[in-house]
Amino acid sequence: MDFEAFFAGELDTVRADGRYRVFTDIKRHRGRFPHATRFVEGQTQAVTVWCSNDYLGMGQHPAVLEAMHGCLDECGAGAGGTRNISGTNHYHVELEAELADLHNKEAALLFTSGYVSNWAGLGTLASKIPGCVVFSDALNHASMIEGIRHSRAPYKVWRHNDAEHLDELLSMYGPEVPKLVAFESVYSMDGDIAPIADILDVCEKHGAMSYIDEVHAVGLYGPRGGGIAEREGLMDRITVIEGTLGKAFGVMGGYIAASANLVDFVRSFASGFIFSTALPPAIAAGAAASIRHLKQSSAERELQQKRVAQVRRALDIMGIPHLDNPSHIIPVMVGDAKKCKMISDWLMDNHGIYVQPINYPTVPVGTERLRVTPSPVHSDGDIDRLIKALSEIWSHCELARMEQAA
Amino acid sequence: MDFEAFFAGELDTVRADGRYRVFTDIKRHRGRFPHATRFVEGQTQAVTVWCSNDYLGMGQHPAVLEAMHGCLDECGAGAGGTRNISGTNHYHVELEAELADLHNKEAALLFTSGYVSNWAGLGTLASKIPGCVVFSDALNHASMIEGIRHSRAPYKVWRHNDAEHLDELLSMYGPEVPKLVAFESVYSMDGDIAPIADILDVCEKHGAMSYIDEVHAVGLYGPRGGGIAEREGLMDRITVIEGTLGKAFGVMGGYIAASANLVDFVRSFASGFIFSTALPPAIAAGAAASIRHLKQSSAERELQQKRVAQVRRALDIMGIPHLDNPSHIIPVMVGDAKKCKMISDWLMDNHGIYVQPINYPTVPVGTERLRVTPSPVHSDGDIDRLIKALSEIWSHCELARMEQAA
Repeated sequence: MDFEAFFAGELDTVRADGRYRVFTDIKRHRGRFPHATRFVEGQTQAVTVWCSNDYLGMGQHPAVLEAMHGCLDECGAGAGGTRNISGTNHYHVELEAELADLHNKEAALLFTSGYVSNWAGLGTLASKIPGCVVFSDALNHASMIEGIRHSRAPYKVWRHNDAEHLDELLSMYGPEVPKLVAFESVYSMDGDIAPIADILDVCEKHGAMSYIDEVHAVGLYGPRGGGIAEREGLMDRITVIEGTLGKAFGVMGGYIAASANLVDFVRSFASGFIFSTALPPAIAAGAAASIRHLKQSSAERELQQKRVAQVRRALDIMGIPHLDNPSHIIPVMVGDAKKCKMISDWLMDNHGIYVQPINYPTVPVGTERLRVTPSPVHSDGDIDRLIKALSEIWSHCELARMEQAA
Repeated sequence: MDFEAFFAGELDTVRADGRYRVFTDIKRHRGRFPHATRFVEGQTQAVTVWCSNDYLGMGQHPAVLEAMHGCLDECGAGAGGTRNISGTNHYHVELEAELADLHNKEAALLFTSGYVSNWAGLGTLASKIPGCVVFSDALNHASMIEGIRHSRAPYKVWRHNDAEHLDELLSMYGPEVPKLVAFESVYSMDGDIAPIADILDVCEKHGAMSYIDEVHAVGLYGPRGGGIAEREGLMDRITVIEGTLGKAFGVMGGYIAASANLVDFVRSFASGFIFSTALPPAIAAGAAASIRHLKQSSAERELQQKRVAQVRRALDIMGIPHLDNPSHIIPVMVGDAKKCKMISDWLMDNHGIYVQPINYPTVPVGTERLRVTPSPVHSDGDIDRLIKALSEIWSHCELARMEQAA
């Protein structure tokens, strides 16, 4: 087989479908984020990032950076091994205690990414609990799906956020069958929020374990940043809370928080945990500083909510269509892959506004969008420029408007 | 099902089998590594680490730390997104170019860990090339096995380092069948090295792709630290070279280096790549500094080889059995799980010498060992203390010696 020709051919297909990804090469400026410099064709361009998951700007928070600098000087760069073979640093132990406390659980376990925490966490539970059946929300993230798939456990997919459908599916199995229900709190692309209490009612009725992915919520919701489940007083009813250190906490890594036995079980059997070099101590130190800060400060959360409301209101006034949802994620709907890419390119080239187009397969065909994530570090001026530019391109392309267009 | 009781019961079984892992909680001291502080039961203890994969001590190299501090101040803590959605930082782009150059390949792709690079790299190639059959060395790392398993492609396991057996297995498939041969250069637990040229001869005879894991070799072998394949002048004959930034390079992350089309193919289809937050820019900056340094300096490699020879010679003189191999890894053979753990505990408690016991399932029952990794930062005094302590416990436990015992 001519492998090179095969790869080239597949890439041509991706290009022809308009799905080929060109990564935008930037340098974020610490202290001036969301401002960044873009590198393109040997030139540089000043840009404003409007699509970051550093939702609160904690990636440039002085407390986070001070902790990282200090730990680099104290412990050096890498961990030097897996957690079991010389790679457990005291900063990991402290961070795991911080995370357990954040979610009011007995224990927590770090992974190198949120992806790995879902993949290894769900994969280990579903494969090692004999006869386990998994019940997965239809819009669960790729990392959860891959973990479930990897476990080779039987699974059922319930209609998105539909607790009644989950109840129906769970009712198909007797009480002796171990059941694991997996879902998210805030869904990344639509920004909608799960009816967690209803889902937990159903889980408890059937004696099922509940596994929630709060990666787009930790740091952002709840009085201490514990996520939607904290805000709604539901953390204690959830078996496993999974989160990330790479979005609102501004650093990198993933984790699960649960009972001491469950965490110890995953720690003892998850291949993706056991055989990975541990996170650099400075990463753990930075994440712990970020969590500690957001446990006692709600200023960032409040200002973010204010900025989100400001952007939504301005979009409404201009009649620019966006999905209404109760979260901080604003999907500006375009509904066409080529237009979506074109608008994104135009915003970048003409206004230095960076919003990545989100096309199929990340979202269904016909729902292509610009996913806008306002943060406390976006200024009134940044928002004005974004709205004006969007309005200009909306007029220019004669794109449909809401209200105003009606 | 009573999940808590199930987890507790499984953990009891692990404990009864002597396989329960207690992580050693340490702080490495930047500038004084391999010296570290151990945290145990509310006390601290000064220890010397003898089982790190920070093989050259690059985790405390001033050039690495300077690059990381600088990048933290310049760009902040995290990347803020996946590579496609605002997470590509210019430091990632530069590091990928550095890695492609290191292996004399057209391109390279970063992952969050070596585990993920193998899992996603092999998983994507084996699942997306229609009809692909994988040929896997019997002692391949868990991350490679999981990637192959995840792909659901058919696979054959060839006897460890046996190119003739590989030839036999490849001969079972016609030339029209796409074939992928996966193996390592330096095997972590025995420290033996693959007959790469023989394996490549067989691959080429059958038109198979070759995929080599050089995680225990990059930085350590070859005039520029390109690994065993560089040392033997074989890089250009290998389809994919996979490596890590978390061992000899002292930081964190994994990568593949290959043709531009192959790398672009994996970049475009690998779920574990696409849906993970990118490495923090400072991690990329530190890794690039480490690679650049080791491309032009062989001093660390030479001193490491000297230290390895010193330890081997001293073990020989004392008659302490160790696996003979051509690498930097010295497996001191104990051959019994409980004794291995006991010796490791005794070394720690009485001499502050930290060598993790390696037991089943990481190695076969009856081959339990202490895996010793001498580095350029171990002093003559450190080596003397290690050898004296080992000799003392060998006498104390009346363990068999080589030569001397005969």
